[in-house]
Amino acid sequence: MISAVEVIRAKRDRQRLSDAQIDWVIDAYTHGVVADEQMSALAMAILLNGMDRAETARWTRAMIASGERLSLTDIGRPLVDKHSTGGVGDKITLPLAPLVAACGAAVPQLSGRGLGHTGGTLDKLESIPGWRAQLSTAEIVAQLRDVGAVICATTEGLAPADRKLYALRDVTGTVESVPLIASSIMSKKLAEGADALVLDVKAGSGAFMKTVDAARELADALVGIGREHGLATTAVLTDMSRPLGRAVGNAVEVAESVEVLKGGGPADIVELTVVLAREMLRLVGITVDPAEVLASGRAHETWCRMIAAQGGDPDAALPVAVHTHVVEAPESGTLAELDAYAVGLAAWRLGAGRSRKEDPVRHAAGVICLARPGDAVERGRPLLELRTDDADLIPAALDALAGGYRIGDAAPPTTPLIIDTLR
Amino acid sequence: MISAVEVIRAKRDRQRLSDAQIDWVIDAYTHGVVADEQMSALAMAILLNGMDRAETARWTRAMIASGERLSLTDIGRPLVDKHSTGGVGDKITLPLAPLVAACGAAVPQLSGRGLGHTGGTLDKLESIPGWRAQLSTAEIVAQLRDVGAVICATTEGLAPADRKLYALRDVTGTVESVPLIASSIMSKKLAEGADALVLDVKAGSGAFMKTVDAARELADALVGIGREHGLATTAVLTDMSRPLGRAVGNAVEVAESVEVLKGGGPADIVELTVVLAREMLRLVGITVDPAEVLASGRAHETWCRMIAAQGGDPDAALPVAVHTHVVEAPESGTLAELDAYAVGLAAWRLGAGRSRKEDPVRHAAGVICLARPGDAVERGRPLLELRTDDADLIPAALDALAGGYRIGDAAPPTTPLIIDTLR
Repeated sequence: MISAVEVIRAKRDRQRLSDAQIDWVIDAYTHGVVADEQMSALAMAILLNGMDRAETARWTRAMIASGERLSLTDIGRPLVDKHSTGGVGDKITLPLAPLVAACGAAVPQLSGRGLGHTGGTLDKLESIPGWRAQLSTAEIVAQLRDVGAVICATTEGLAPADRKLYALRDVTGTVESVPLIASSIMSKKLAEGADALVLDVKAGSGAFMKTVDAARELADALVGIGREHGLATTAVLTDMSRPLGRAVGNAVEVAESVEVLKGGGPADIVELTVVLAREMLRLVGITVDPAEVLASGRAHETWCRMIAAQGGDPDAALPVAVHTHVVEAPESGTLAELDAYAVGLAAWRLGAGRSRKEDPVRHAAGVICLARPGDAVERGRPLLELRTDDADLIPAALDALAGGYRIGDAAPPTTPLIIDTLR
Repeated sequence: MISAVEVIRAKRDRQRLSDAQIDWVIDAYTHGVVADEQMSALAMAILLNGMDRAETARWTRAMIASGERLSLTDIGRPLVDKHSTGGVGDKITLPLAPLVAACGAAVPQLSGRGLGHTGGTLDKLESIPGWRAQLSTAEIVAQLRDVGAVICATTEGLAPADRKLYALRDVTGTVESVPLIASSIMSKKLAEGADALVLDVKAGSGAFMKTVDAARELADALVGIGREHGLATTAVLTDMSRPLGRAVGNAVEVAESVEVLKGGGPADIVELTVVLAREMLRLVGITVDPAEVLASGRAHETWCRMIAAQGGDPDAALPVAVHTHVVEAPESGTLAELDAYAVGLAAWRLGAGRSRKEDPVRHAAGVICLARPGDAVERGRPLLELRTDDADLIPAALDALAGGYRIGDAAPPTTPLIIDTLR
């Protein structure tokens, strides 16, 4: 007979949890036999004393077993999934899913909504008139077969233990545990049943992991879980010290993604999209060059079909903010720094993000970075553009930006966008 | 604005908790603003990352502030309190309270019931026909004035935060934290408002702290809290590797205590009673010799008045068990070892203790140690006597005793009963 106190004590005393202990505690927690106050004590013990690779893999397996698996059968194409740990201006999923589908794979992107300073993919797409996030499993399968790409809300039945545990960790100071973060991400991804997975693990002020070392530790844990479960997994470590692209918000990020799909857009968005697409295709054995497909316009065609399949009008005008406020360069020189966190926080304060799960987001709100690190700037010329439907929100957004950019004499040292690739 | 997550994170990240954080979190927990799952995560962080002396003293102060203080005024004698961390056969409070009262001090002993293999003082006294544990504050004051000694149940209003936290720690694997144990003990003792306190901190198999080092750490923490609160406090480190005295149970321990009060009884009970009495009297400046008072019979007179004041008949026959089972010495030699934990567990299994708070105890059940470590024993002669009202419980008690005693060629090395005194 396993008991909650026995499992808690084992981890408290730095012992390995057995497979039976992990299976029991996750199942008992899902069914309310282990109480919240017991699971939070265990989560704190895990945060402070860790779990090794095998424990973390088993923990993930138990969380998957708490719910159903998505059965994406008879799609007729290899299924490849992608996950980003989240960053400021990170709209990569939007051009990436149709691009990889246009190259011949099927891309199921079950996504979440944003909380805090990083946006959510569903929030962004909901700025497209008519588009809906909620699909049934049958609709997901049909769309993967017809279009090859779907971006929609996570279905209820996937890893319910993870949903319950995540909400608990949020209020008990136990979010920042690598094994718990990694198993949370991977339990949902593995329950989707894709053939391969590429993870974009971000490091920097705008990311959850502030340093490259911390991001690498998480990437290692994620790839480790994938390997233990026999899933072809790659983690790409990328820079999140500055915003990705120029647009940070919801509708503004959709617009920038469409630019990229039409062959334009900021170079960093194009680069990261192509790098991730190439890795996704490599894992499922497709040798098509995504850069060529992007240039051909076929990814944009797939985008239009993907949006239309979910009720959206890809040609409709996107919402435009009522108020615009321009931040001018205080001096001439080179933009030496533009901090991702400051820009993300400003966009959030303008209404692009939410502070509580049940809050709505403002689709037109956001920040446009008119200059980017390394650009020459001239005193009095526009640096940043703030957009919002509520002018009262502008002062708090300006506060967030104070100290978030720096103009110097020389170009800043270049941080590579792609830091490393872990396979 | 302080939040639960902020306080949890601070301790998780090995920071000192501020006075304001401690005061807020205890008060908010008492009133249900901080949820059980948040307090258990904090308790685990405290268990693993510790609290320093000042934090522990403040934590204790906040727990006292969660309830009322007992106002024991106009007693007309110095008030001196005693606490034992609990052991097997530890009936010292029974002769000690009337002895110290007979020497001129007032002794308020607000006690608990037993849980697990160590007995509770109230459970023992309840084997005396008519005796009642529940007294009002007015009754406590009157009895201290008239008799000088009272042993009764803790009043409801003392340190309610401690009661709530103790129940939570019990189910979340967070009992074994020295700062939490020490603040739990001291919050109740300080709320009683005595002038001085002597702590009997036990070390050994029959105690909560298994090693002298662990017991010393707890004793240090207890004395530290006493000092921070301006309470004259002494901790006496004592051995609990073998049972105290010969009797382990409820009625059998009362009978042994009366023997001691009448001038007889086992030497170790007499020694510890006198040592603790001498320290209690020293702390409140009374120079009477407790050994003389014990020999004079005046402590026994005070005992009779104390029992009678709470409705008990000090001359009534104590309950006698229906069944007796004798364990004989398997060979001749010297009793080299008699393990306190094994004997305590056997007594508990015979019905002397409870496994759940709401269970009753059997007053007549227990174990009598007919031989004690160092005694010569002869093959086939009685070693231990098991007493119970339910013969079905005997096999499980015998199981508990298997390996719990050892007969050798020579007398065992003598462990001193009094290991150290910390002032």
